[in-house]
Amino acid sequence: MPRDILAITGIRSEYDILYPALDAIQAHEELSAGVVASGGHVADTHGDTISYIQQNGFEVVDSVAYLLRGDDKRMRAKGVGTLVASLTEVVSRESPDILLVAGDREEPLATAIVGNYLDIPVAHIFGGDPVWGNADDPVRHAVSKMTHIHLTACADHRDRLVQMGEHEFRTFDVGNPGLDRIRTVPELSREELSREIGFDITEGPFLVLIKHPLSSERTAAGSQMETTMKALADLSIPTVAIHPNTDPGSEEIIDVLHEYQNYDFVSVHENFERDLFVNLLRYATALVGNSSAGILEAPFLSLPAVNIGNRQTGRTNAGNVVYVDHDVDEIVEAVQRLTDDTRRADLLEQTDTTYYGDGNSGPRIADVLANIDLDTELLVKSNRY
Amino acid sequence: MPRDILAITGIRSEYDILYPALDAIQAHEELSAGVVASGGHVADTHGDTISYIQQNGFEVVDSVAYLLRGDDKRMRAKGVGTLVASLTEVVSRESPDILLVAGDREEPLATAIVGNYLDIPVAHIFGGDPVWGNADDPVRHAVSKMTHIHLTACADHRDRLVQMGEHEFRTFDVGNPGLDRIRTVPELSREELSREIGFDITEGPFLVLIKHPLSSERTAAGSQMETTMKALADLSIPTVAIHPNTDPGSEEIIDVLHEYQNYDFVSVHENFERDLFVNLLRYATALVGNSSAGILEAPFLSLPAVNIGNRQTGRTNAGNVVYVDHDVDEIVEAVQRLTDDTRRADLLEQTDTTYYGDGNSGPRIADVLANIDLDTELLVKSNRY
Amino acid sequence: MPRDILAITGIRSEYDILYPALDAIQAHEELSAGVVASGGHVADTHGDTISYIQQNGFEVVDSVAYLLRGDDKRMRAKGVGTLVASLTEVVSRESPDILLVAGDREEPLATAIVGNYLDIPVAHIFGGDPVWGNADDPVRHAVSKMTHIHLTACADHRDRLVQMGEHEFRTFDVGNPGLDRIRTVPELSREELSREIGFDITEGPFLVLIKHPLSSERTAAGSQMETTMKALADLSIPTVAIHPNTDPGSEEIIDVLHEYQNYDFVSVHENFERDLFVNLLRYATALVGNSSAGILEAPFLSLPAVNIGNRQTGRTNAGNVVYVDHDVDEIVEAVQRLTDDTRRADLLEQTDTTYYGDGNSGPRIADVLANIDLDTELLVKSNRY
Amino acid sequence: MPRDILAITGIRSEYDILYPALDAIQAHEELSAGVVASGGHVADTHGDTISYIQQNGFEVVDSVAYLLRGDDKRMRAKGVGTLVASLTEVVSRESPDILLVAGDREEPLATAIVGNYLDIPVAHIFGGDPVWGNADDPVRHAVSKMTHIHLTACADHRDRLVQMGEHEFRTFDVGNPGLDRIRTVPELSREELSREIGFDITEGPFLVLIKHPLSSERTAAGSQMETTMKALADLSIPTVAIHPNTDPGSEEIIDVLHEYQNYDFVSVHENFERDLFVNLLRYATALVGNSSAGILEAPFLSLPAVNIGNRQTGRTNAGNVVYVDHDVDEIVEAVQRLTDDTRRADLLEQTDTTYYGDGNSGPRIADVLANIDLDTELLVKSNRY
Repeated sequence: MPRDILAITGIRSEYDILYPALDAIQAHEELSAGVVASGGHVADTHGDTISYIQQNGFEVVDSVAYLLRGDDKRMRAKGVGTLVASLTEVVSRESPDILLVAGDREEPLATAIVGNYLDIPVAHIFGGDPVWGNADDPVRHAVSKMTHIHLTACADHRDRLVQMGEHEFRTFDVGNPGLDRIRTVPELSREELSREIGFDITEGPFLVLIKHPLSSERTAAGSQMETTMKALADLSIPTVAIHPNTDPGSEEIIDVLHEYQNYDFVSVHENFERDLFVNLLRYATALVGNSSAGILEAPFLSLPAVNIGNRQTGRTNAGNVVYVDHDVDEIVEAVQRLTDDTRRADLLEQTDTTYYGDGNSGPRIADVLANIDLDTELLVKSNRY
Repeated sequence: MPRDILAITGIRSEYDILYPALDAIQAHEELSAGVVASGGHVADTHGDTISYIQQNGFEVVDSVAYLLRGDDKRMRAKGVGTLVASLTEVVSRESPDILLVAGDREEPLATAIVGNYLDIPVAHIFGGDPVWGNADDPVRHAVSKMTHIHLTACADHRDRLVQMGEHEFRTFDVGNPGLDRIRTVPELSREELSREIGFDITEGPFLVLIKHPLSSERTAAGSQMETTMKALADLSIPTVAIHPNTDPGSEEIIDVLHEYQNYDFVSVHENFERDLFVNLLRYATALVGNSSAGILEAPFLSLPAVNIGNRQTGRTNAGNVVYVDHDVDEIVEAVQRLTDDTRRADLLEQTDTTYYGDGNSGPRIADVLANIDLDTELLVKSNRY
Repeated sequence: MPRDILAITGIRSEYDILYPALDAIQAHEELSAGVVASGGHVADTHGDTISYIQQNGFEVVDSVAYLLRGDDKRMRAKGVGTLVASLTEVVSRESPDILLVAGDREEPLATAIVGNYLDIPVAHIFGGDPVWGNADDPVRHAVSKMTHIHLTACADHRDRLVQMGEHEFRTFDVGNPGLDRIRTVPELSREELSREIGFDITEGPFLVLIKHPLSSERTAAGSQMETTMKALADLSIPTVAIHPNTDPGSEEIIDVLHEYQNYDFVSVHENFERDLFVNLLRYATALVGNSSAGILEAPFLSLPAVNIGNRQTGRTNAGNVVYVDHDVDEIVEAVQRLTDDTRRADLLEQTDTTYYGDGNSGPRIADVLANIDLDTELLVKSNRY
Repeated sequence: MPRDILAITGIRSEYDILYPALDAIQAHEELSAGVVASGGHVADTHGDTISYIQQNGFEVVDSVAYLLRGDDKRMRAKGVGTLVASLTEVVSRESPDILLVAGDREEPLATAIVGNYLDIPVAHIFGGDPVWGNADDPVRHAVSKMTHIHLTACADHRDRLVQMGEHEFRTFDVGNPGLDRIRTVPELSREELSREIGFDITEGPFLVLIKHPLSSERTAAGSQMETTMKALADLSIPTVAIHPNTDPGSEEIIDVLHEYQNYDFVSVHENFERDLFVNLLRYATALVGNSSAGILEAPFLSLPAVNIGNRQTGRTNAGNVVYVDHDVDEIVEAVQRLTDDTRRADLLEQTDTTYYGDGNSGPRIADVLANIDLDTELLVKSNRY
């Protein structure tokens, strides 16, 4: 009988990381895959991402509603409680062989707790990543201490987990699964792209802007975005801007985007289909803001990133990232460096394009889950030291 | 204004660790203490431990019910959910300066989650302890990754936390607070003790037996206890046996104790008042079983321990512990070694009696909580590596 | 496609009411049955009632843990919250055509709430019964106001529901389904019975005693039981005593039973298999205490009942019940009246043995559920007045 | 010591009903008032209604977050579970003498459950109202069956509760407390009003439009609103339109309002301060839509109402309401009848302006709560029949 892998997903961006793993699991003879959709998948009144998961060919065996209304730190904490309680019932009933999660949000935290108490091994993608600044970061490391199989995005993350006391036998550097999809996205021309997004980027440099709020600097979200937009207005390079995620502070950022939406240099979008987004990154001069894509995906596309502020601080990068503060001059200067052909080439030369993997992480994950011994040694997490 | 410290406690044994810290906090000019009682304190239909906390002079500002009925792993996982949800509301309302917890059970886990999302620093007693075998162990380390102030029981635990990436500036070796109370317990004579417990231990060697179930070996709890009692019956040394905690498997252990309760060599007790228990340990020849007291408290009393099975495996000890398997011969031999004066003296000579501190941990903890800077550096847990 | 009926059950006694309905539903061509087990079925560490339900041939599609530890009113209220939250997820996923519940405890309350908000019709067995004294009684009537199909145990209950504003078209007098099973239980001889229970009731009068605590008189549970046992000791008629349910106060009642368990006149039992229990009632002289069986089942067996105290107060009865206070003399006198052949015959003559139905309720319920229109008129509960 | 009254409120509109009662309770010598804010008060990221309650002079003793994100029936049901669980803890801790709620939403339902199991009497405002069409209606009646003191808005509601089996001794016709505030709102001139709302209604007839979604007709919310707006566009009478509440379907209604917002005849507003709203009703020709204000408040202001569709169906009214379907012609005709002086005068002549009270309900409620005996008779809800 194939091993039954149950993935828990809470938001589209994290599902995009899980997808290549699920796809390879489904294709693997000795594995079968199921999905529990929760969080944003269930709460979102606009995008029906549950249907999207089903259209990808996966069975959504259950869903869990837990996100509370209100833009308040309290809501996240209380929501974790509801998620743990509900997920306990789902996992008890489904009784999978392995639970699978990714990242640092409520779903991996709750799943790690449930797997730990129910004695069901949990595999965790993207542990050991030393980003900080959000309430999510300590969660990532706490999840690593409670989970049983670590599937890291790069060798540095793997080494950090071993340093933190995790056994080497349960820790695998599989690369960032998000690259699997980038590798296989069909190529669009700049003309097709311009048509699709209704904004002319047929030639010359252009920027892609994604700026998320940082929970520890939440009250500054609006003014930080003002600074960013002021710098971009000064530069006047065509800019494709995308709405932030829905974390606290996001509304202030969107308000600033709305202020600028009638300027010629900028084209504001709520969201892009994945394929469109990847093609934008393929032609962009730089990714500006603080999206994790600048760290985790841009190197694979040989794309420089200008990271503004603290959101990705501490994160190891492949050499493609220029870090700046929320300062108009710093931002302007960093972008200008990347529009200068020579200086841009210098940066890309020092970039390790396979630092976060080679776009074949999904099959590697499936192999680990199919072959690892599901025994007491795996389940009882003795500390190595 | 004094800093407001809110301790969360879920069970008597863990409250006994918190008590010396709370006592010193209450006595400290720049601190004030409050307690949230949950778990066993609320569910227990027999001992009214909430009144006990109040009689100790502490204000119980709220209580949280979350323990589910039923001897099942699922109940613990789901209960954590209820605790996180309820505790979020309590902490949001009370809005303390620092949250305080101890150990590896549901309360520290839930408090770490709530403190992390609400941006309230959490101080954790007894992190870095490398015990394993229970679902509680990974929780201990996960709690360390989410909490902000570490108050360890010995230097080895402190070093392990630093190894795991915790900053030295937030990590303090304060010693085991449980020893504070042992230091000050009034001494009883062996005659008084014998009278109190209704069992003659006025002279000669005697043993104290405490055997808890291990969640990962739950189904073996009964047969392991049978082996233990068989060995003790062979030895026929007077033995004071105490009921286990209420973890899954405890009922089977109690059943075996009941089988043996009419034997002359053994005297079975549900529980002892702390003072009585400490005095028993003062005169005992050895502590037998798998109680943490053998590791954490016995050295301070120069008491050898025979640890049976895996429950305390991996835990660093002060040199007073003889580890044996669930094997009649091994148990018999280990106890005989400790009733032989020369060999017993050898063991005690190699024991570091202040390995887990000197009985002054409470004031040390109060000093840390009064003096540490409650700033962003404390709250935002960047990884050192 | 058959209509999918999902029954929610929380305790053995209430499952015994649901069983004949489920049995008939399963047998009905146009219906299919599923069961959600919760409450006592999940929390009970002794009797495995979930396996019992499965052995009866029903599919347990899910289970919900919600009963909190602790003998406290707070636990019931908080538990209802957990049940509503968990049941919402179960019912959303299963999406049955009709939900089915019985009685006045947490399960019908939570199911009525969930069905109401999810627009799924709920059928409720045993509404309109005017018993009072427990926190359960208002729940029964609240459930009737939120549910869509009423399946009452007698004509009086049906009339009361109509009086309360429920439409006649949704209200059906189907009789007490508990009688279906009584009708079909194979007969044992008094000799067989005596052997089975280890107590000689081969000839002469004997009593069956069941005394439950009353939540509004909880603190008096022990002394009321003392009075009861004193009266029975005075009477010295052979008495088969059965433990109460687990409501608050039950431990005090059990303590009193233990005090008397060495008396010759009494034989104390934790529980009986249904078949044994029914045969006991067939031969008993009277059912003494405050079990609902005295009101609801005894008439069908032409069995008189002595109801002590307020627990069944207000409940309409078939004429077989003698009501007495917690008073030794009143109890003695009432029992003596029933051991006197003439006076006993008088009571039975005025008893309507089919007041609570004829033992064919299950098929009647199945017919209602198969034939009622599941339309807006059923779902939108306009008040008749 | 004064009796401690704890009110539970979840949304601004229902708080407006509670306010006059709380105000009178606070002023009463033998009573003291506290408020628990939950639901919309906590989730709302825009209006800070908790500060508003505090500015009214009431102590907000606690708050409860429970509203789940997502426009889905499931969210309401699951949210009730979270509310019941959290409220149990709040009420256990606060231990008030009487709980106070109003209406038919999650707060009165959860409070009735908690009060029932905790044996704390619950006073309920606005029971016995026979409105139907929403999931809220059965809740209103279920609440009446679980609560202990009924404070009805009119004599018809009181009679219905008695009909439903509630004792007369616990049922009081106090009138609609919402009128207390209307009575005391300072008068603005039509010029001032026009200036405040930025829309000229200085002379001639004008309409106020409020149209809420109906949960049982949710999918039709948009098309029903289209019909309504088409009729009003045909009439071309100046119309002040107000956004609906946030129930499922509200977004579709707002979308239609946005379609029409550039038309001259209509002025669209998210919300009005209470004083402004009352003054609008004082001068309006008719209240159009399906707001409960048309039934419950308009009579007191001698204001006719055109009620469109089923939302207020079944509700007794004071004679000022014209019921129409979602039909352009019916709506046009009904409004024309009310702009015709003679026909309008006929309608108002048959209107009983004190049908829902005289604007002095608050003091009446305070008197009931101060004087009713808080004894077993009040708490144990025996059925009268």
